[in-house]
Amino acid sequence: MSNEHEPVAWQWLSSESLLVTPHLEIRRDEVIRHNGSRATYDILHMPRDFVAIVPTRGGDELLMIRQYRPAVRRDSYEIPAGGMDDGESPKDAARRELMEETGYAAGELMDGAGYHPLAGRSNVICYVMHAPDPEHVGKPTDPNESQEVFWADAARFADLWQQGLIHAGATVTATLLGVALGWLRWDLSQVLTARRFPS
Amino acid sequence: MSNEHEPVAWQWLSSESLLVTPHLEIRRDEVIRHNGSRATYDILHMPRDFVAIVPTRGGDELLMIRQYRPAVRRDSYEIPAGGMDDGESPKDAARRELMEETGYAAGELMDGAGYHPLAGRSNVICYVMHAPDPEHVGKPTDPNESQEVFWADAARFADLWQQGLIHAGATVTATLLGVALGWLRWDLSQVLTARRFPS
Repeated sequence: MSNEHEPVAWQWLSSESLLVTPHLEIRRDEVIRHNGSRATYDILHMPRDFVAIVPTRGGDELLMIRQYRPAVRRDSYEIPAGGMDDGESPKDAARRELMEETGYAAGELMDGAGYHPLAGRSNVICYVMHAPDPEHVGKPTDPNESQEVFWADAARFADLWQQGLIHAGATVTATLLGVALGWLRWDLSQVLTARRFPS
Repeated sequence: MSNEHEPVAWQWLSSESLLVTPHLEIRRDEVIRHNGSRATYDILHMPRDFVAIVPTRGGDELLMIRQYRPAVRRDSYEIPAGGMDDGESPKDAARRELMEETGYAAGELMDGAGYHPLAGRSNVICYVMHAPDPEHVGKPTDPNESQEVFWADAARFADLWQQGLIHAGATVTATLLGVALGWLRWDLSQVLTARRFPS
């Protein structure tokens, strides 16, 4: 309830489990805020955090997959990503997910950043890593995962983006972070454009 | 269960509500995947999608707030963001949230993109918008919201990032998107560095 920057005085009154399934838990927390007001938050806990891997080739291509996302009932063009298994480190999970979803073996894996995808509702963390020049070993090892594996340059990424086919947060966030950190030498301002919302 | 790009043949067997609260619903969906395997997904539905606003000044400063995030029990440096009220469009919500959290009035609001922050678990959408040169009107109008409001240049953003104080997905994603689309003329490769994961 505090951090190194400056303490914040919220008080926890209670935390009650509303639902537990193998995949998630919903807890209801009652708090008193810094200004004295009371509030209730229903918070999504997940048993495992997850990882997103930015696999690059020559600094200008990104290894992508196509998969179906049942939660949003849509096709999705993504980078490899997935939940950490029990006892796995982010790097262990990244190495496994990369192989399962693409059939590529990571060499060195480098930390990018951890972030909270849905900070207003869940404490789940996504750890972003860079996998430069992974080695092609064979087919994806998990048949339930990706339906297509391909290398995309900036123009291909922008084309999929423009079609609305890149919409999964981990992919959007991790790829943009990879560009910002120089993992991908992409000048997106030359190719990426805003997407108008459906009206 | 299909899109304009290429149809994907997943079959929904059932969808059952496991929990409904004022803030969220958890549904359990049973499906048959494209490859014939059966699977169960527990999916987070939220009654409202949300918006994230990238307010910029002169193309090189970003309006940020500090707020406490009970779901992660941490202080968080963010851009204005919040849930859409009933009947609100993304732009209506963006205008309201910007005023509530910062005391600034948006002029023109421009679409950036909608994305799914947690595509593996939830269908919730975050709509990112650009608010160039908003007008300062007064104090934030919602006392439960931000505890600090300030303009950040690239160096300040990078400093907060490096301290681990920028970790909320909507802020990370929307700001990086704003940089990629040229809303902010920031060369982050000069100031942003990777954050090592806690070991």
